[in-house]
Amino acid sequence: MNLYGDTRSGNCYKIKLLASLLDIRMVWIGIDILAGDTREEDFLGRNPNGKIPLLELDDGRFLAESNAILHYLASGSEWLPEDRYRHAKVLQWQYFEQYSHEPYIAVARFISLYLGLPEDRRAEFDAKQQGGYKALGVMERQLEATPFLVGEHPTIADISLYAYTHVAHEGGFDLGAFPGIRAWIQRIQALPGYVALGEDSLSSE
Amino acid sequence: MNLYGDTRSGNCYKIKLLASLLDIRMVWIGIDILAGDTREEDFLGRNPNGKIPLLELDDGRFLAESNAILHYLASGSEWLPEDRYRHAKVLQWQYFEQYSHEPYIAVARFISLYLGLPEDRRAEFDAKQQGGYKALGVMERQLEATPFLVGEHPTIADISLYAYTHVAHEGGFDLGAFPGIRAWIQRIQALPGYVALGEDSLSSE
Ligand SMILES: N[C@@H](CCC(=O)N[C@@H](CS)C(=O)NCC(=O)O)C(=O)O
Ligand SMILES: N[C@@H](CCC(=O)N[C@@H](CS)C(=O)NCC(=O)O)C(=O)O
Repeated sequence: MNLYGDTRSGNCYKIKLLASLLDIRMVWIGIDILAGDTREEDFLGRNPNGKIPLLELDDGRFLAESNAILHYLASGSEWLPEDRYRHAKVLQWQYFEQYSHEPYIAVARFISLYLGLPEDRRAEFDAKQQGGYKALGVMERQLEATPFLVGEHPTIADISLYAYTHVAHEGGFDLGAFPGIRAWIQRIQALPGYVALGEDSLSSE
Repeated sequence: MNLYGDTRSGNCYKIKLLASLLDIRMVWIGIDILAGDTREEDFLGRNPNGKIPLLELDDGRFLAESNAILHYLASGSEWLPEDRYRHAKVLQWQYFEQYSHEPYIAVARFISLYLGLPEDRRAEFDAKQQGGYKALGVMERQLEATPFLVGEHPTIADISLYAYTHVAHEGGFDLGAFPGIRAWIQRIQALPGYVALGEDSLSSE
């Protein structure tokens, strides 16, 4: 399997982290979004939506969307509960991530870390703070009740939310008021096979 | 089962449509988002993220996020393929919906239909057009190749994308240049058990 990704991207890191935890081998193909790689014709042929991460199976089929890729890879493992309600709860948290968390926290981080917080994006950056803190509040409430988002054991919902939460400070967010989240971050970092964002773990081309 | 929802909301309509197609009974509990119902304390106790649709199971447990609810309800039915790759493809389209489609098309429709396109939201409305048309282009490409988004048969991915696509004109989008999408809309409307957005189909309180 090949993974088209950018090492600084949290959405791509989700895949790298799960692959490392489950000891799944894949080849990392570096894509530079700022250089416009995702808008080139050959890339759009692979993913018409022009986004990474993108998984290429050994038979040449493609799969896009970070959370869909996590489901594909975790299928049959303990990272994806089979119980109907808990399975749906994993999805609930992952859709929450894509709709109510990532568009604030990841985008604020992108403006700050990738773009260097230019003056003309300052208002947008500031506008992301409220929604980001709201999302952190929703997570905190759950993580004060259970060690992981869907109960006693880690699932791919934790991976999806961990990706941008643990680097939320790079988007200007202060986790000081979120002790449940901070303890959960430490629990994830203690998992066997854990790999940090940006670290080289997959073989790369 | 109870569904907390607003009859004009496409996210809530997804559940109503699948329930009708699969002949699942649930009680509709009307929520008025403009009146602030989702920000009231008792609602936040049910869904701390303060959003509808929200499903309440008979045992009192809750499930939020329209697409997670679709998975819960469609589990074991032909609307959710078990094949690992096709299952992941359903998810790919649903995450695409939440990230690259709904935030443009549904939000433009909200500004126009719910709020009456006030002058101070005009720039935001206009800014939604480009992303919305890009999403429609991605769908068109698939629907020119296959009758439904994940192949020959309808899945919950079609329901997720249908919800706001078939009312895209209410957000200012013209489907004239998307014959594949228009034919797909007709295929969905011809399904036995189909119910229109806004129509009364669930029993209501
Ligand atoms: N919903 C997508 C979001 C992916 C996404 O936004 N990827 C960014 C990098 S983190 C990207 O490819 N941006 C380039 C572009 O949109 O042109 C997912 O979860 O995979
Ligand atoms: N990602 C959510 C989005 C739900 C959503 O945005 N619901 C709107 C109505 S269509 C809502 O509850 N808005 C009230 C609010 O956000 O306060 C889903 O798919 O269920």
